[in-house]
Amino acid sequence: MLAVARRKGFEAHCLSVDYGQRHKGELAAARRVARELGAASHRAARVSLSLFGGSALTDPAIAVPKGRSASQMGGDIPVTYVPARNTVLLSVALAWAEVLGASDIFLGVNAIDYSGYPDCRPEFLRAFERLARVATRAGVQGSRVRIHAPLLRLGKASIVRLGTRLGVPYHLTLTCYDPVRGRACGRCDACTLRRQGFEAAGVPDPTRYHRPKKEK
Amino acid sequence: MLAVARRKGFEAHCLSVDYGQRHKGELAAARRVARELGAASHRAARVSLSLFGGSALTDPAIAVPKGRSASQMGGDIPVTYVPARNTVLLSVALAWAEVLGASDIFLGVNAIDYSGYPDCRPEFLRAFERLARVATRAGVQGSRVRIHAPLLRLGKASIVRLGTRLGVPYHLTLTCYDPVRGRACGRCDACTLRRQGFEAAGVPDPTRYHRPKKEK
Repeated sequence: MLAVARRKGFEAHCLSVDYGQRHKGELAAARRVARELGAASHRAARVSLSLFGGSALTDPAIAVPKGRSASQMGGDIPVTYVPARNTVLLSVALAWAEVLGASDIFLGVNAIDYSGYPDCRPEFLRAFERLARVATRAGVQGSRVRIHAPLLRLGKASIVRLGTRLGVPYHLTLTCYDPVRGRACGRCDACTLRRQGFEAAGVPDPTRYHRPKKEK
Repeated sequence: MLAVARRKGFEAHCLSVDYGQRHKGELAAARRVARELGAASHRAARVSLSLFGGSALTDPAIAVPKGRSASQMGGDIPVTYVPARNTVLLSVALAWAEVLGASDIFLGVNAIDYSGYPDCRPEFLRAFERLARVATRAGVQGSRVRIHAPLLRLGKASIVRLGTRLGVPYHLTLTCYDPVRGRACGRCDACTLRRQGFEAAGVPDPTRYHRPKKEK
């Protein structure tokens, strides 16, 4: 997503949010990717969503599902859904955008090959855009916030191909919900979808997966 | 607002947010008021909006305006506006509400006798309500979030009278943007509007104001 924004000519101020997620490693990974892709800045904001729990990503007592095939992901919204997370992320982004004087907010959500999260859907993004235009001083003064989700309608293989073309340093990225000693678990839904994306795109997968020791 | 929700029969789970505001004392005050009014729980979430600044309430380098009359507040949105703050507050509330299984969110905003903040207006609340209904699993499953703002269209005097009738412990509340040693400054816009509300309502003002030492 950042590579797309940069290619379109945007000066990019990158926001990561520490919301108490298991995979906090994504914050450091995002910082490295931001630097590599020439972002103007990177900030990590904190929001204590783990105070409420209610998700496998923020509550250690709820296990992250492992070993599900993509076809098994099509049903109910999974326990990795974090209540209202993307609403919170976009709100914090909107706050920073207003301080920066920026009116374009990019978000990496995807509604194909995804886990069925409600706040990755086009109708969510449109509703947030409408909200943003009445929520801020900038909006009242005529600035029209645009929410860009350039990956929204791409399958994972298309995303991998696009990123490869744009020079995304995939070896620096972290997708896994439940890393083991800094390595991708290889078995959560996020790992499964990512791995299949690389396979389908015919692009070598640089991800360093955790290899459990063989039992004796 | 809490007294209204309680009177309507709601079990109340109260959320305060530490967003790096000058007047952090409002968090402890909210906790005391919640206890006094029989709330089921009170939580203080953290959101690091002071990371971005852009407001007199979150950036120590921007002074809180003092000594303005109510008529002077009618013009531009003042520097005490915190970019996207109520969007952030409602987003965090939406997250907790979904975990609780609650569909009624109360917010104490007021659009009469106020400072002209865009995110206190009815159109903002309606836009957030529409967003909430597509943003969450609960929404997808048919729960219809309602945003209640029972003080929205009341003048400050009416609010004081209503609260008095409902037994609000006003001596425990904190309104001031810039307290001095735990006491209301008496001169910021919030203090001015609050004081005038008590006066116009003919209700004794229990606020303990800071009294600067007289110059010699």
